[in-house]
Amino acid sequence: MADTIFKKILDGEVPCHRVYEDGRVLAFLDVNPLSHGHTLVIPKEPAETLDQLSDDSAQAVGRVLPRIVRAVLLGTGARDYNILQNNGANAHQVVKHVHFHIIPKYDDGSGLGIGWPAKKLDSDEAEALAQSIRGAVAPTGVHRAVGK
Amino acid sequence: MADTIFKKILDGEVPCHRVYEDGRVLAFLDVNPLSHGHTLVIPKEPAETLDQLSDDSAQAVGRVLPRIVRAVLLGTGARDYNILQNNGANAHQVVKHVHFHIIPKYDDGSGLGIGWPAKKLDSDEAEALAQSIRGAVAPTGVHRAVGK
Repeated sequence: MADTIFKKILDGEVPCHRVYEDGRVLAFLDVNPLSHGHTLVIPKEPAETLDQLSDDSAQAVGRVLPRIVRAVLLGTGARDYNILQNNGANAHQVVKHVHFHIIPKYDDGSGLGIGWPAKKLDSDEAEALAQSIRGAVAPTGVHRAVGK
Repeated sequence: MADTIFKKILDGEVPCHRVYEDGRVLAFLDVNPLSHGHTLVIPKEPAETLDQLSDDSAQAVGRVLPRIVRAVLLGTGARDYNILQNNGANAHQVVKHVHFHIIPKYDDGSGLGIGWPAKKLDSDEAEALAQSIRGAVAPTGVHRAVGK
């Protein structure tokens, strides 16, 4: 994995407008914000996409997300917001280090633009698909799997 | 908080195509998918938006997200994907119970549509904003705050 701009921020080689930091997580303002208060939350672990991230780092990011969000709302006065995390160039990922966007959405429309071309789930195919995904979830000693 | 369709799914009153479950988290196929394998991951705790979710539930969801994503990728053959979590009607939230979308993005373009009207961060205003947000992050006994 090549050094990314986020790695350089983590290493202190590039400055950032930091809003939160702990042993596993860093949060800072996006320098190309979609809206006022657009914040990035990243694990310190250098994983390119979420599926490559360790359980412990994913847990640490998940745990602090609501607290960082509350601070963004307090600091901006925003009420609505989107959390977005992109994986792969085709899914709009640019920096190849896992990052969660916190993007306030304002009444003037500033924030994330969302296209939602929903279809109907084919119920015949759906249960086969659900079974296929369900069967692919790796076991873990940490979480109790119910009804599997 | 009124009963939502997700509460009814959690209570077993409405069926779902379940792909994962543990003591705090349930994941199932979205019945109006944006793409093949579109999956919802929800905390069992009934919080309307992420900022209202407990640290423990947020941690539990965060921890299992990578594992569920890997299973979705295995079950569908998708490579790229977006994680999206909407809060507030103006931010495209429909069901008023926290939910993370896992939305595979395919080469045919199916998946989440993203509009990205990025601006430049005003660096004079940015540090004041970062300080305001940083100062609003609630303290915790669990995470060590570094360099604050």
